[in-house]
Amino acid sequence: MVELKNDRFLRALLKQPVDTTPVWIMRQAGRYLPEYRATRAKAGSFMDLCKNADLASEVTLQPLERFDLDAAILFSDILTIPDAMGLGLYFAEGEGPRFKKVITNRRDVEAIGVPDPEEELGYVMNAVRAIRRDLNGSVPLIGFSGSPWTLATYMVEGGSSKDFGKVKGMMYDDPIAMHLLLDKLAESVTSYLNAQIAAGAQAVMIFDTWGGLLTPQAYKEFSLNYMQRIISNLQREADGREVPVTLFTKGGGPWLETMAETGCTALGLDWTINIADAKARVGEQVALQGNMDPCVLYGSADTIREQVSKIIADFDGNSGHVFNLGHGIHQHINPDNVKVLVDAVHEFGRKSD
Amino acid sequence: MVELKNDRFLRALLKQPVDTTPVWIMRQAGRYLPEYRATRAKAGSFMDLCKNADLASEVTLQPLERFDLDAAILFSDILTIPDAMGLGLYFAEGEGPRFKKVITNRRDVEAIGVPDPEEELGYVMNAVRAIRRDLNGSVPLIGFSGSPWTLATYMVEGGSSKDFGKVKGMMYDDPIAMHLLLDKLAESVTSYLNAQIAAGAQAVMIFDTWGGLLTPQAYKEFSLNYMQRIISNLQREADGREVPVTLFTKGGGPWLETMAETGCTALGLDWTINIADAKARVGEQVALQGNMDPCVLYGSADTIREQVSKIIADFDGNSGHVFNLGHGIHQHINPDNVKVLVDAVHEFGRKSD
Repeated sequence: MVELKNDRFLRALLKQPVDTTPVWIMRQAGRYLPEYRATRAKAGSFMDLCKNADLASEVTLQPLERFDLDAAILFSDILTIPDAMGLGLYFAEGEGPRFKKVITNRRDVEAIGVPDPEEELGYVMNAVRAIRRDLNGSVPLIGFSGSPWTLATYMVEGGSSKDFGKVKGMMYDDPIAMHLLLDKLAESVTSYLNAQIAAGAQAVMIFDTWGGLLTPQAYKEFSLNYMQRIISNLQREADGREVPVTLFTKGGGPWLETMAETGCTALGLDWTINIADAKARVGEQVALQGNMDPCVLYGSADTIREQVSKIIADFDGNSGHVFNLGHGIHQHINPDNVKVLVDAVHEFGRKSD
Repeated sequence: MVELKNDRFLRALLKQPVDTTPVWIMRQAGRYLPEYRATRAKAGSFMDLCKNADLASEVTLQPLERFDLDAAILFSDILTIPDAMGLGLYFAEGEGPRFKKVITNRRDVEAIGVPDPEEELGYVMNAVRAIRRDLNGSVPLIGFSGSPWTLATYMVEGGSSKDFGKVKGMMYDDPIAMHLLLDKLAESVTSYLNAQIAAGAQAVMIFDTWGGLLTPQAYKEFSLNYMQRIISNLQREADGREVPVTLFTKGGGPWLETMAETGCTALGLDWTINIADAKARVGEQVALQGNMDPCVLYGSADTIREQVSKIIADFDGNSGHVFNLGHGIHQHINPDNVKVLVDAVHEFGRKSD
C-alpha cells in the first residue's frame, strides 16, 4: 500500500486539522479540457471510454496534471447501474444520456435484477484499480453513484426530462411500483459503492441530481430514505482509514437538516444557499462541500478570486470545508480560469489552528 | 362597470373573509384542453393567437366553462416585451420560445428601447379589454409579466437553456451591462403592467421563472431588486378596488422573507416547500398562492383529493390562501383530473369565521 501524500481532502471531510482548504471540481475530467477531448476521440463512444480502464485512468488524471487539485474522482457515468440492469445506455450527440429500454409499469420493474458489481460492472472496478495504481498515492480517489431516485428518473423518462412527468406520474399513480424500483436500486447502489471501496475508492459521493424536484414529503419518502439505507450499509473503512460519504441533492438546500441525519460525513451544496447559513444549520454534524456557482468561471480572474474568497470567509471555519463548484463545470469554460480558482482556494483557504 | 359576481380570489389575496378557498391554475388555458388545441389550430401560430383579441379571449374563457375556477388569466406569453423590443419572438415546433436576435454584449443592450405598451404591445391591451367584456363580471382577470431577470435570460440565451451559461456569464463578466438591461426591462414591465391594469386587469402577477437559479446574493441584486422597483411603481387601485400583486420566483422558497418585503400582496409558491412552513415564515405579511406538485394530476382522483386536502390543512387558515399548482399544468394531463382538483379545493376549502 502506497502512503497518501496529500490527504487534505479526507482530513477536511472528517474535520481533522488541515494546512489549507482542499478543492476538487465536479466533472473536473471533462470536455472543457482539450486533452480530454483528444482521449475521448481516441476511445470511441463515451461508454467505450468508461469501459477502458487505462483510458478512464488517463482522463481521471488529466486535470491533476494541470491544476493543484486535492482529489481525483473516478471517471464514469451515474447511469452505469441501469445500463447493467439491461436498459442499454447510449449517448445521442448533443442530447445527453438515453436508454434503449425504459421502465413504464410495475411489470417492467419486477423484471429487472440487481447487478453484481464485479460481474456486470467489473469495468468500473477495473477503472478504480487502474486509477489507484496511476495516482500512486498523490491524492485520494473518490468513487460515486447516482442516488436511487435519480437513477429511477432516467430509467422511467428514458433520458433527461423537462418536467419529469413520467417518473413523477408513476410515483403518484403507482407508489408501490416506484418503491419496488427504488428498493432494487438502493440494493444495487449499496453493493456498487462497496465494490468501489473494496477496489480502492477512498471516499464516496452519492449524486442525487433530481431529488430537488420533489415535494418535501416525497423527497423524504422516495429519495432520502433510500440514500439513508445505502449509507447505513456502506463499508466505512479502507486502508485503515475512515471512508467519508458525501451526500449531494441538487436543490436540497431546504432539507439539509434531515440530510445531515442520514449518517453521511458531508453534504454537497449547490450555489443557491449561502454556505454560512448551511453551516449554521448543520455544521456541527457534517462537513460541507461547495458551493461556487459554476458560471462564476465565465467571469474575470478578479471576479473568480473575489467569489472564492467570499465563500471561504462565509464558511469561516478551520476545517470541515471542501471547496467545489455547486454543480459540474460547464464544457465551455476556459481551463485557465480553473487554475485561478484552484490556486485562489489554497491561497485564501484556512489553516487549522 | 359590471359588478364582480365572484370575488373570492381577490378577497383571499387581501385576507378578507371568504366562503371557501379560491382556486385557479397556472396555464389553465392551454394545450391539455382539446378546445384550446382547436382554437390554436384555427389561429395559426401561437403569437397569432396572442395577437387576435377575440381568439385570445376565447381561449382565456375555455377553462372557466369546464371548471369552477375563481379567476381568469390573460392569455399571452411572458416574452411579449422582448418581442416588442425588436428581438423577434417565435416558437419552433417542440423547442419552446426562440428569438431571432439575441443580446450578446453591452452595445446590444444600449441599442434596445423601452416599448410603449399601448403602441407596440397594444394587442395585449386589446386582449385584456376583450376578455373583461366577455367575462362580464363572472370572475376577476389576472394580468401578468415575466420578471426582468427572467426576460433577460431568454434575451441573452436566445431561448430556453440548460445551464444559463450565457446570461449568467454576462452577469459575472459584465455586471454593468446586465444592470443596464435589467433597468430597461424593469421600466418596460412597470408600464406594461400599469397598462394592463388600466385596460382592465384586476390583479397582476410577476413570473420570475428563473430567479431560482441564482445565488442568494445575485438573486437579490439581479432579480428581486428590480421586481421590488416594479411593485413600488404599480397602479394599485382599479374599479375602486385594490389591485393585488403576486410575486412568484420558482425555486424561491429559501428567500420568502425578503420577497415578502417587496410590498407585494402575495407570494406564489412552487411545490418544493411545505405551505405550513411558508406560512410560519411570512404568513403575517402576505397571502400565499400554491402549491400542489403539477404531477399529482397524473395520479388517481383519490390521490388528487388527498393532496388537495393536505395542502389546505397545512395552510390552516381562514383566508390568505389561493390554491394553485406550484407551476404550470402539463400538456398531457387529463382535464377530468383538473375538475377533481378544482371541486376538491372548494369542498375542503376554509370558510372564514
